[in-house]
Amino acid sequence: MAESVRAAVLTAPGRYEVQEFPRPTLADGALLMQVELSGICGTDKHTYAGETKQYAGTPAETDTPFPIIQGHENVGIVTEITPRAAERIEFYGRRLKVGDRITHCPDIVCGRCYTCKHVSGWVWCDNSECYGNSLTSADPPHLLGGWAEQMYLRPDTFVYKVPDGLSPRIAVLAELMACTASLDKLKEFSSYAFEGFNSGDTVVVIGSGPLGLLHVAKADLMGAGQIIATDLSSYRLDWAKRCGADEVLDVTATSAEERIDRVRALTGGRGADVVLHMANTPRSFVEGIEMLKRGGMMLEMGNFADTGETSINVHRHVCSKNIRLVGLTNHPSTGYGPALRLLERYADRYPFEEMVTHTYGLDAAEQAMRTSMSPESMKVAIAP
Amino acid sequence: MAESVRAAVLTAPGRYEVQEFPRPTLADGALLMQVELSGICGTDKHTYAGETKQYAGTPAETDTPFPIIQGHENVGIVTEITPRAAERIEFYGRRLKVGDRITHCPDIVCGRCYTCKHVSGWVWCDNSECYGNSLTSADPPHLLGGWAEQMYLRPDTFVYKVPDGLSPRIAVLAELMACTASLDKLKEFSSYAFEGFNSGDTVVVIGSGPLGLLHVAKADLMGAGQIIATDLSSYRLDWAKRCGADEVLDVTATSAEERIDRVRALTGGRGADVVLHMANTPRSFVEGIEMLKRGGMMLEMGNFADTGETSINVHRHVCSKNIRLVGLTNHPSTGYGPALRLLERYADRYPFEEMVTHTYGLDAAEQAMRTSMSPESMKVAIAP
Amino acid sequence: MAESVRAAVLTAPGRYEVQEFPRPTLADGALLMQVELSGICGTDKHTYAGETKQYAGTPAETDTPFPIIQGHENVGIVTEITPRAAERIEFYGRRLKVGDRITHCPDIVCGRCYTCKHVSGWVWCDNSECYGNSLTSADPPHLLGGWAEQMYLRPDTFVYKVPDGLSPRIAVLAELMACTASLDKLKEFSSYAFEGFNSGDTVVVIGSGPLGLLHVAKADLMGAGQIIATDLSSYRLDWAKRCGADEVLDVTATSAEERIDRVRALTGGRGADVVLHMANTPRSFVEGIEMLKRGGMMLEMGNFADTGETSINVHRHVCSKNIRLVGLTNHPSTGYGPALRLLERYADRYPFEEMVTHTYGLDAAEQAMRTSMSPESMKVAIAP
Amino acid sequence: MAESVRAAVLTAPGRYEVQEFPRPTLADGALLMQVELSGICGTDKHTYAGETKQYAGTPAETDTPFPIIQGHENVGIVTEITPRAAERIEFYGRRLKVGDRITHCPDIVCGRCYTCKHVSGWVWCDNSECYGNSLTSADPPHLLGGWAEQMYLRPDTFVYKVPDGLSPRIAVLAELMACTASLDKLKEFSSYAFEGFNSGDTVVVIGSGPLGLLHVAKADLMGAGQIIATDLSSYRLDWAKRCGADEVLDVTATSAEERIDRVRALTGGRGADVVLHMANTPRSFVEGIEMLKRGGMMLEMGNFADTGETSINVHRHVCSKNIRLVGLTNHPSTGYGPALRLLERYADRYPFEEMVTHTYGLDAAEQAMRTSMSPESMKVAIAP
Repeated sequence: MAESVRAAVLTAPGRYEVQEFPRPTLADGALLMQVELSGICGTDKHTYAGETKQYAGTPAETDTPFPIIQGHENVGIVTEITPRAAERIEFYGRRLKVGDRITHCPDIVCGRCYTCKHVSGWVWCDNSECYGNSLTSADPPHLLGGWAEQMYLRPDTFVYKVPDGLSPRIAVLAELMACTASLDKLKEFSSYAFEGFNSGDTVVVIGSGPLGLLHVAKADLMGAGQIIATDLSSYRLDWAKRCGADEVLDVTATSAEERIDRVRALTGGRGADVVLHMANTPRSFVEGIEMLKRGGMMLEMGNFADTGETSINVHRHVCSKNIRLVGLTNHPSTGYGPALRLLERYADRYPFEEMVTHTYGLDAAEQAMRTSMSPESMKVAIAP
Repeated sequence: MAESVRAAVLTAPGRYEVQEFPRPTLADGALLMQVELSGICGTDKHTYAGETKQYAGTPAETDTPFPIIQGHENVGIVTEITPRAAERIEFYGRRLKVGDRITHCPDIVCGRCYTCKHVSGWVWCDNSECYGNSLTSADPPHLLGGWAEQMYLRPDTFVYKVPDGLSPRIAVLAELMACTASLDKLKEFSSYAFEGFNSGDTVVVIGSGPLGLLHVAKADLMGAGQIIATDLSSYRLDWAKRCGADEVLDVTATSAEERIDRVRALTGGRGADVVLHMANTPRSFVEGIEMLKRGGMMLEMGNFADTGETSINVHRHVCSKNIRLVGLTNHPSTGYGPALRLLERYADRYPFEEMVTHTYGLDAAEQAMRTSMSPESMKVAIAP
Repeated sequence: MAESVRAAVLTAPGRYEVQEFPRPTLADGALLMQVELSGICGTDKHTYAGETKQYAGTPAETDTPFPIIQGHENVGIVTEITPRAAERIEFYGRRLKVGDRITHCPDIVCGRCYTCKHVSGWVWCDNSECYGNSLTSADPPHLLGGWAEQMYLRPDTFVYKVPDGLSPRIAVLAELMACTASLDKLKEFSSYAFEGFNSGDTVVVIGSGPLGLLHVAKADLMGAGQIIATDLSSYRLDWAKRCGADEVLDVTATSAEERIDRVRALTGGRGADVVLHMANTPRSFVEGIEMLKRGGMMLEMGNFADTGETSINVHRHVCSKNIRLVGLTNHPSTGYGPALRLLERYADRYPFEEMVTHTYGLDAAEQAMRTSMSPESMKVAIAP
Repeated sequence: MAESVRAAVLTAPGRYEVQEFPRPTLADGALLMQVELSGICGTDKHTYAGETKQYAGTPAETDTPFPIIQGHENVGIVTEITPRAAERIEFYGRRLKVGDRITHCPDIVCGRCYTCKHVSGWVWCDNSECYGNSLTSADPPHLLGGWAEQMYLRPDTFVYKVPDGLSPRIAVLAELMACTASLDKLKEFSSYAFEGFNSGDTVVVIGSGPLGLLHVAKADLMGAGQIIATDLSSYRLDWAKRCGADEVLDVTATSAEERIDRVRALTGGRGADVVLHMANTPRSFVEGIEMLKRGGMMLEMGNFADTGETSINVHRHVCSKNIRLVGLTNHPSTGYGPALRLLERYADRYPFEEMVTHTYGLDAAEQAMRTSMSPESMKVAIAP
């Protein structure tokens, strides 16, 4: 194998550069993975734009450092593995060997803080680190993001073997699919037949990018009765329909009032049972609340980076609405098993295979980033 | 309209007779429905066999009286309606008129007992009555079961308008589909990612008659990761596969130990996350528990009539297993809206349209009953 | 009995007048109650101030009409009762007769709208009416509020017999105590040992008026591990201590930052598990969120009337915080039984008997209202 | 410190012997604790009687080995500690030093099996080990039970610092109190106002030994409305009253039918909302179910060791009853913080300080065991 490894490095907001790094020596318990595909996520766009504050107001609050190798939605092949990693690193206890296809959770947890000891699965660690997000390429082992030929996975990483039936193009969606554990979380709050997310319910998804899209598919897959998707791209709304949306609302062609009225008209005047806010802007937050029925449940996952303030009326939007509002970052490490199983079981029902619409090499990182910001793309990935 | 109405009457266990009744006069708030289809259910078979004890040990304990017009899974057309019924009887507040297709909840509740005031939707009324089950044809208005040309629906009945897109053959499944609200109930007990019924979970369905079959379909529709069905009829197991079962276990060709081992083998040695016991016998009850993982959840709906005693080991099957066992009778009145919506939305995904495999006229009631007991039938219905 | 009945009428915001009304004739199913005590609630103060918008943004949105007889927290003695009311009006099925002490739920529901059919207990009816709040004294039977010698209770009222062991001074707290069903609601969202409200948790109560105070007592009674109360009145904070608060924070002597820091210091740096926002202002809403741990749960009950807008950061206060925010109005009709039972069972543990600190006659309605606005009062009641 | 350590060893069922062991050398991360008190638990009595099968039917199934030093409810003082243990072994991250009072979870988990990765807190590890239960004294470091002057705590032990305000006599109850996390678990299943365990509910506790007694106290502490306790010892029933039981039923003076009838009479004919089965016999299992209301919840913790078979009627006791049955072994590691906090906060409300009724030295181990089996004792402890 080559002694040096190429990677696309974001040296500062807006500036990519391909660099060569020495092939790292593995610490006991670590492994090396040849990256096949690495998806671009909304967080990556924020970082590119210099909006680097994450987890504000929590013990895990961070600012993404530079230089950094981005890429936290990764799938690849084991190229080198220590005996301890072979035996212990796979989440479900399966042995790994060179040549196995794997994916991993980007978040690394300490396992010892109060949160780690009390929260099941969800990686809300006080001291969390994140491949492609919080780990700079300035320090060894350098290769801590997916936009590189090889990636270094530390012993404390959650690693998952990819089922044989899954192509890299589908497996690269595993982290996003694991994020839809959010809907299982809403189910936990269910109280028949009103509260939470019950089968037959009307679900609104605000924002139909890749994360929103997989939530459309997952809502369909979990027995929603009616799915309504919004976006400002008609291209993405077509995707939403392919994933199960019964009705789509184009934000460029309608006012907030019209959209709220439409949701009410489609629900016998009541409003939606569930609203999933997947747009990374606070502007549609109150709109989402207005779309809810009294006692309805809203999920906020869109504002993952700090996007500023908005105004609400506590009486109208919280108290009087009898709202159940759940904010969620991340996803559970335990969500990958179900995610991979569902991606495989329902591969012929949803267009998972086509969801990566564009791929680029390391040299075209900037072009990849720009394409991902276009309304005419779905998931864009780097193929190093 | 004719002044007399024909009905198949069960005058005593095992004895059907077609009788004529006077067309009833409607009380304020009532309506008359021309029956299109009336499904035969496991309870009807128990009644036919003289096993008439239901809800033993509860305030609602009853013995089915004779003579009786059976049939509580009904769909039909409004033929006469009082103004008050037109305005008020439909559950979701829709106006009804002559010619509308409707279905109804068989259970009638008092609305005033402690249970009615505290249990949302589920018809566990202390004073519950049931069309085709607890209301004799000896007394006026006589026509209180579905095996009749016309059926009388009292003002206190939960009535549901059938969506235009649904044929009678699908709409007759509404009550059974409403029973699968059981799975939404299990979801309420979910705790990510272990307890209750989560997406990606392995679900075992013991007993693949119509109720079991719709539970297979509903588990699939709600995002199960793997579905295993058992039955003693290979005909029914083929149906289970069409509804989403990944694996089927023929009870006539395997021992209980073999089936338990197979479930463990399919779940990495752990056992199933969820077992749905839909067989009307206590014999497979402990088998179901043995199939569960530690901390798994079992649903008991099969033993709706009194089927006698069985032996369990409280340490092994309850305490040590950390079981969550939920017994359920009936279904919620609020479950019909979701049931009808899902039957319509997913009609092209599951073979709902073909699930009524045999229909018979009133004169052939006994033949219908016998066919329903054959392992080569699925849902059998009377078409008066 | 006298043929005319005196009542304190609010003829317009800020203007009370004692008027005489004819003793009403009872409709079938109704009863007449001699009012012993009628508590003044925060809502009454809003109405007095002309802030009359309630349930904004819901089907139940109302503006309090004038003239009105206020008073919706009532206890009294049955003075006249129709046979149907004697048999049917008591919620738990107990027979009533002249001379019985009763209390009632102020909210009247239609029982037929979607919300009534789907929400268990909670009186969120689309067409809800409210004694002392939405029913004017201009129309017969006039006496639809508690600030009157006699009060008319309609057949569709939820009426509760008061246990013999409870004095009127305690029984008048029943509606407030029923409001603390909110904490049982939070428990439903619990997921051991992190989410919702678990025994041993740290609970912050913002606003220590009567509603906040009963939430302090109820949190203590349900096994909180530490209770922190805030208010701008040191008099009320002393009450909070008597009801179980371990620590109190005087809003007039501390900044929001200091209070947030103090809560963190008392919770090992994490923040509170549960925050109950009982203040009727949006100003402390974001402060409450900042006091929460990541993944913590906040309850908003304080802004029952429309109090205007406030600004939040969706990233920081919702998404990143992984908040569970529950807005609640009202209380469940099913909450009165438990409320009365707990008031009786724990009467020697909490100072319920002394919580009504001031009583006034009908002629002193305005003085009563002003006293209730003083920081040196707890529950103020009218004794007609 | 002495170079040898004395311990009471159970060399075979029914045979105690005091032995001397070499003072062990600490592995990195371990500590040595001088035992102050070690409680005798029901499991210890089973082991003494030769009933050694635990967790039957699960991956954790074990047979207690001999010779063994019993004692898993321990409190003591740190006498020697490695630097790594000082920094890392305390569950909540507090530093430990020689002289600190600590308690610990008896169960040791692997942290890597499927159960460890998916179950929050509860120590249901596939490979679980247990101090005083599964670890023989035959092998070094020998001192793995509490009936010894010094006890060896491995690096993978959950250790908890005891608050300054707690005496050893109360702190020795921490493990039992952590077991009452069971009631928080029931709360998770609550659905207002019917299902699970809500404030104001009637709770029956079957079996009033130390575990049952702490459940009586915890139910009281969490807002039960009425508590009914049963036992065959009037001495223990007096204790139950002191802990909050409103009504006690002496099993030696009543028949099962009489007890069931009494529970119904105390609940308006409905049956109890919650039954906690704490007796280590299957005989009262069905009695507990019969005491439940329809839809009620029963907790089975009593049959921790294999106690044989019993007969149930699946229709009557599961399906028709609409039961929610939860089997539980163990307790969560996360339950110690809340347990210690509640023992401290409510020490003046419950007779925790007196609950250890008898203490014995190592030489009197057999007498201690026999006293613990007497109906005239509550918690019996060894004070080495």
